[in-house]
Amino acid sequence: MSYFNVEKISYEGPKSKNPFSFKYYNPDEIVLGKTMKEHCRFAMSYWHTLTYMGNDPFGGPTMFRPWDNTNDTMEKAIERVHAAFEFMDKMQIPFFCFHDADIAPRGKDLKETNERLDKIVAVIKEEMNRTGIKCLWGTTNAFGDDKFVHGAGTSCNATVFAYAAAQIKKAMEITKELGGENYVFWGGREGYETLLNTDTGLELDNLARLLKMAVDYAKEIGFTGQFLIEPKPMEPTKHQYDFDTATVLSFLRKYDLLDSFKLNIEANHATLAGHTFQHELNQCRINGVLGSVDANQGDPMLGWDTDQFPTNIYDTTLAMYEILLAGGLGKGGLNFDSKVRRGSFEEDDLFLSYIAGMDTFAHGLKVAAALLEDRVLEDFKARRYASYQEGIGKDIIDGKVGFKELEAFALSNGVTKNTSGRQEMLESILNQYIANVNE
Amino acid sequence: MSYFNVEKISYEGPKSKNPFSFKYYNPDEIVLGKTMKEHCRFAMSYWHTLTYMGNDPFGGPTMFRPWDNTNDTMEKAIERVHAAFEFMDKMQIPFFCFHDADIAPRGKDLKETNERLDKIVAVIKEEMNRTGIKCLWGTTNAFGDDKFVHGAGTSCNATVFAYAAAQIKKAMEITKELGGENYVFWGGREGYETLLNTDTGLELDNLARLLKMAVDYAKEIGFTGQFLIEPKPMEPTKHQYDFDTATVLSFLRKYDLLDSFKLNIEANHATLAGHTFQHELNQCRINGVLGSVDANQGDPMLGWDTDQFPTNIYDTTLAMYEILLAGGLGKGGLNFDSKVRRGSFEEDDLFLSYIAGMDTFAHGLKVAAALLEDRVLEDFKARRYASYQEGIGKDIIDGKVGFKELEAFALSNGVTKNTSGRQEMLESILNQYIANVNE
Amino acid sequence: MSYFNVEKISYEGPKSKNPFSFKYYNPDEIVLGKTMKEHCRFAMSYWHTLTYMGNDPFGGPTMFRPWDNTNDTMEKAIERVHAAFEFMDKMQIPFFCFHDADIAPRGKDLKETNERLDKIVAVIKEEMNRTGIKCLWGTTNAFGDDKFVHGAGTSCNATVFAYAAAQIKKAMEITKELGGENYVFWGGREGYETLLNTDTGLELDNLARLLKMAVDYAKEIGFTGQFLIEPKPMEPTKHQYDFDTATVLSFLRKYDLLDSFKLNIEANHATLAGHTFQHELNQCRINGVLGSVDANQGDPMLGWDTDQFPTNIYDTTLAMYEILLAGGLGKGGLNFDSKVRRGSFEEDDLFLSYIAGMDTFAHGLKVAAALLEDRVLEDFKARRYASYQEGIGKDIIDGKVGFKELEAFALSNGVTKNTSGRQEMLESILNQYIANVNE
Amino acid sequence: MSYFNVEKISYEGPKSKNPFSFKYYNPDEIVLGKTMKEHCRFAMSYWHTLTYMGNDPFGGPTMFRPWDNTNDTMEKAIERVHAAFEFMDKMQIPFFCFHDADIAPRGKDLKETNERLDKIVAVIKEEMNRTGIKCLWGTTNAFGDDKFVHGAGTSCNATVFAYAAAQIKKAMEITKELGGENYVFWGGREGYETLLNTDTGLELDNLARLLKMAVDYAKEIGFTGQFLIEPKPMEPTKHQYDFDTATVLSFLRKYDLLDSFKLNIEANHATLAGHTFQHELNQCRINGVLGSVDANQGDPMLGWDTDQFPTNIYDTTLAMYEILLAGGLGKGGLNFDSKVRRGSFEEDDLFLSYIAGMDTFAHGLKVAAALLEDRVLEDFKARRYASYQEGIGKDIIDGKVGFKELEAFALSNGVTKNTSGRQEMLESILNQYIANVNE
Repeated sequence: MSYFNVEKISYEGPKSKNPFSFKYYNPDEIVLGKTMKEHCRFAMSYWHTLTYMGNDPFGGPTMFRPWDNTNDTMEKAIERVHAAFEFMDKMQIPFFCFHDADIAPRGKDLKETNERLDKIVAVIKEEMNRTGIKCLWGTTNAFGDDKFVHGAGTSCNATVFAYAAAQIKKAMEITKELGGENYVFWGGREGYETLLNTDTGLELDNLARLLKMAVDYAKEIGFTGQFLIEPKPMEPTKHQYDFDTATVLSFLRKYDLLDSFKLNIEANHATLAGHTFQHELNQCRINGVLGSVDANQGDPMLGWDTDQFPTNIYDTTLAMYEILLAGGLGKGGLNFDSKVRRGSFEEDDLFLSYIAGMDTFAHGLKVAAALLEDRVLEDFKARRYASYQEGIGKDIIDGKVGFKELEAFALSNGVTKNTSGRQEMLESILNQYIANVNE
Repeated sequence: MSYFNVEKISYEGPKSKNPFSFKYYNPDEIVLGKTMKEHCRFAMSYWHTLTYMGNDPFGGPTMFRPWDNTNDTMEKAIERVHAAFEFMDKMQIPFFCFHDADIAPRGKDLKETNERLDKIVAVIKEEMNRTGIKCLWGTTNAFGDDKFVHGAGTSCNATVFAYAAAQIKKAMEITKELGGENYVFWGGREGYETLLNTDTGLELDNLARLLKMAVDYAKEIGFTGQFLIEPKPMEPTKHQYDFDTATVLSFLRKYDLLDSFKLNIEANHATLAGHTFQHELNQCRINGVLGSVDANQGDPMLGWDTDQFPTNIYDTTLAMYEILLAGGLGKGGLNFDSKVRRGSFEEDDLFLSYIAGMDTFAHGLKVAAALLEDRVLEDFKARRYASYQEGIGKDIIDGKVGFKELEAFALSNGVTKNTSGRQEMLESILNQYIANVNE
Repeated sequence: MSYFNVEKISYEGPKSKNPFSFKYYNPDEIVLGKTMKEHCRFAMSYWHTLTYMGNDPFGGPTMFRPWDNTNDTMEKAIERVHAAFEFMDKMQIPFFCFHDADIAPRGKDLKETNERLDKIVAVIKEEMNRTGIKCLWGTTNAFGDDKFVHGAGTSCNATVFAYAAAQIKKAMEITKELGGENYVFWGGREGYETLLNTDTGLELDNLARLLKMAVDYAKEIGFTGQFLIEPKPMEPTKHQYDFDTATVLSFLRKYDLLDSFKLNIEANHATLAGHTFQHELNQCRINGVLGSVDANQGDPMLGWDTDQFPTNIYDTTLAMYEILLAGGLGKGGLNFDSKVRRGSFEEDDLFLSYIAGMDTFAHGLKVAAALLEDRVLEDFKARRYASYQEGIGKDIIDGKVGFKELEAFALSNGVTKNTSGRQEMLESILNQYIANVNE
Repeated sequence: MSYFNVEKISYEGPKSKNPFSFKYYNPDEIVLGKTMKEHCRFAMSYWHTLTYMGNDPFGGPTMFRPWDNTNDTMEKAIERVHAAFEFMDKMQIPFFCFHDADIAPRGKDLKETNERLDKIVAVIKEEMNRTGIKCLWGTTNAFGDDKFVHGAGTSCNATVFAYAAAQIKKAMEITKELGGENYVFWGGREGYETLLNTDTGLELDNLARLLKMAVDYAKEIGFTGQFLIEPKPMEPTKHQYDFDTATVLSFLRKYDLLDSFKLNIEANHATLAGHTFQHELNQCRINGVLGSVDANQGDPMLGWDTDQFPTNIYDTTLAMYEILLAGGLGKGGLNFDSKVRRGSFEEDDLFLSYIAGMDTFAHGLKVAAALLEDRVLEDFKARRYASYQEGIGKDIIDGKVGFKELEAFALSNGVTKNTSGRQEMLESILNQYIANVNE
């Protein structure tokens, strides 16, 4: 049975007038020595694609999906699996990402919940075998249920901590079962609403304890996927503990967890934290912790997580540029943690939106690759920092001088004339590369 | 004598590697039946280009201009005129905009200030005659001097109101003398710091009184330029009275001034107010008050007026789209109220930055024209709102029905199925037009 | 039967250690010649108090209320009425506000929905008679259901416009039936998601058409309640048409609706629009359109509508100050459009939160009244603007002078020395009044 | 000679109507076993108090100070010292903070600049001896001069790095000479404008190199003051490297500098970074790096560093609460990095503003002390986290359990009922303490 009328999406080139075609994403096209699909490692987010119905804080569902046409929750879960794989197959998306709660309905207790997960995991495995589609990462939803109202690993209630640990254990097990290449920690309720009632010291210590247990358990069961922490500054809590890349790095270093974790950077979370998407990727890159990407975008005028499909060519170009500089995504991928707008409620919109996102990243990849190949920015930077390649600059880098030597140098030599940073010219060149990419 | 080593900038097409060339701005190229230069009506901002030295709240000048190589303030003012016209001529910029304070140094009193203005105005007129460059608009600086610390037209000090009126009178006279096509009101200090000490009612009444006097005086002297109000939400005051387009419209309607004023929309002011640039232009268009544009851009992560050169292709495309829908800029233009970054302190950066801005607008114009010609958005909208062309929709538009008739209709007919808004598809098409513009 | 263990809340004074007591709100205490309850006209919001269950975009319900212990939706609706009036009675809250959708479950069609409303309205009337509690305002929910996905009065679908009109008609009728003193228009979906698919001109014209029909129908049925528009800048749509007070005023003036509408100002909406709560009230006051208040607060660090109970003494003081200057709330009131935090999920928290809100407003009222009685700010302002009481200032106010006279004045007299605005001193005095209010 | 007409400011109690008196700051009053002056360790900021003239990006000076009545820059510098100490003495401020550039005019080269510094330092020492006023901290201004246009320690120009090192060396020496208890690093230009031209990896490595040199040199000369880094997220650069506390901690941990540095937290910098002031102090406290405080406040509606005098009683209460929990300020203090508003340009405003700031902190100290003495929040938190004191909670803390044990626990025990976080009640109690502090 089929849930979508749309045919398999294929590449038709940048001038195609067919909205149901790729204009830039040509999976097997070679860019800088790798195929586009190897560069991008696109993933479908199970939650936004299969279970999101258009609800928002001011309104109910607008999306009434054909695969939800049953009142039996387990049957519905199975039909969602079928819809998911039909969709990915038609979209040429090689990976998916999921929370436990996305794939199976919660049971009356942990035992039943876990049994339900096992049943659905079996269905998913069949579909994976059938299609060749893989699991990029799994995670647990330890934020939606009311037991997590005050946090999971940072709950003030120790039995909730225990429950969260049990959930993660199971989610890690099924991620392993599905061959997931990564396991993600996003602490949806790990933060505070008010400092008036919060012991941040204890809560952060507990979060570190939870993560250490996860590391230990992964070793014990031989799960070799990469662990990822996903920063977010706020929402749902007033202040999330994993605010941004720097905050997570500080935490990992404090608790000696840096060897075991990389980061999963989400564009919209970056901008809510007051950073550009590129900034967060850049900080991951220079700290060697770029793990994976949640590909979406926010609205710069709006203060909440809009999780829009990424269609800004600047953002995708500069993101792919950092990823290329970092040597690629490794085990990670570009997971569309993006949801169709509430007004884009037709099944066709799922296709049109994923096409928009995949094309914008593919377009960005081509622009980034061209910039890198022509060494436009890299040569500019090399010239700009050349003074550290010799003389007093090299002595600084090599640790050969201290304040006294530098003062002596300054007294004798003063300062060499600075040169312009040429920001406007570089922005203009970036525009030129964007518009010339089709040639 | 010449202040710039750069030669006259010319169009070399989108693939040119010469940074000192236009890639998109081809002044005489025809787009939708008009030349690019007629569409764009680019203007140089005198202040940011000639007098800005790189100062910011945390640092002093970084730009030491050759035309400032004298201690005589009047001589310096004259050299700035020469530099200005050499620059505009080389850049093919047909208009300039100015504040009184930009062109001549303030004197010891109003009388001397006015005499100095007259001397410099004569020099400018010579240069205008020599080059054919015109004045887009003039204005007064009634915000920088300490007498305006509590406002100009909204000062709590009536003698300051009088002084501001005298300044505007003179500025309007010299704008007329220079053939200025518009006169701009930006109330740099017309706002409040704290409501604890402010009588907003009196201050706004006074602002209206000042504008009425301006209208009367223009009639009296036969100044036929268009009057423009420039909204800004904050900075330098905590809250500016002319917050945004809607606020200005409300004010003009309240005080019966709507017939005498249009708006001058600045991109960076729009975004500081929580609106997109396009939104503000759209609101002007549908209210018939689109006067002119201050072409720049802000940084969505920063909360102050960065006045960057506009290099975002989305913003310029959507701005030009609104301008085309509005039937063009009329007497207005695209004034680069943009300053080179503090780190772009070389004279060459003035050229590179204006090129960046002019090219991004020209590029945007071409994309907007293509979208309009193909009726991509206009046809989509026509279909989307078609239900108002007949039946109950037409009755609503024609005022033929009220609540009782509509209730009867709803009871009998319920609601016709909605269709998707297709936001993601439209964003994707926009990207396609941007990247295909070179062909 | 009783839903709350808490006893009736009474005033125990500012030093009481009993959390279930008023510290400031003493309903019959006289302040500036009126009782506190006459000044404040507190109202309960039916939706946040009775039907909110703690859901947010990342999680499900945390509040499982005893009055929801039934699967019969009409029975549940009736029990909510009983709980509502028990709560208001115990809290000494004299008014309530409601949407149609809060009080009765939507039926299978408009007819059934309206019949259900009639049944519940009858129950509410009984309770009103029993307790003496009144209706401050009613409204319709024309934003939650999927038919309103593209707007109600601004929908691109004319049949949705018709349906919205029918809903408003019925909501106005039941508001009249309940003796509601006001009727509120908050356009939850009246805005746009993207300008790429939106005809803002048509949509705003239609919104005006809808409001004119409402005015006409009110006359027809003899509904004499005050009509209120509630501004909000964003959320749920990207850009709401009723952005802020100025935007609404501009709209009302454009469409000649100013005589028929006042404004309902919500604190959290003010701050989302980049204004202080006081600013919005101030703008209403000086334009004569202060109608009513949605009393809550946002978090200045968060970009969405948090609808917190108002506990900031500065905000309530300055709000009450504007309200006192405006001559009081008239037919309006202070409606707690506030919801308990998701983590404050116990029934007791409803009491503690309303106490917090009512006390903070009562506290603010006392501080504002003291400031006004001592004329601290009013005398300061009178001195500050004294120059408009005589001489050239009075001539300006009286319209006796124009630019020529003012220039002559400025040439002869220059500018009188400005005096300090004393912001810091005034802020310090405000603190003193806040801390001395108990004496 | 005297520069101020105002007499010495003394404590007159909370009901005093004399604006030139302290209402809360009573230096020798004992609070929780220490005098207020020991708790607060107030400091005057030399720059904002003596050299700020009211300039902002849109206007020139409004403050024409009597001590600036000379054209001789060294003479002016000396008069500023006299004015500074007269002011501090009259205000009962025991400390001052300074940049090198505040106290002496820059010379034609480093040598002359250093000689000038030595001359002024001698004058300051005299005044310190005369008055008993001490130096809280010194620093260098390595951001204002054009040589630092691209950064100081993070400049792309190695000779600028050398010059910055020489400046810090001298500033550290004179801080030692003046007995400064701390030395502050605020990297005004240590950040980037655009990633297009920036090598963040090299720049951050260089910043670490510079700080290591500073640590080494301090040891060499026996400077035992505490080193402080002051975070700021943006302004003047688009993105400052020391974004917030977490970012600085991550940096210090990465480069093994954590033992040598603490943090100097500025309220306005906290809020620009999307955190509350209390949050940043809290994060310092739980990481053991609370060094000192720059006491000011921003405007939550404005996106730049307004550096207002702190007058918000919530902020000062919660700040002092964190400071008390941390065991006090140690070598640090409360430095008013605050400037009078541009419209508060009279000398009297300096007094009124410092009074406002000192009183608000003293008031906050008293409220915080009362909250702590009554254990209002501490007892609430103790009860809230009690589950970690025994049973499974204690096992978690003690590291006795892992995922398997916790899963077994969850399967057997499920989750204990959560209790309300009582945010609204706690906020209400805070208000009660604020208003009851006078008793």
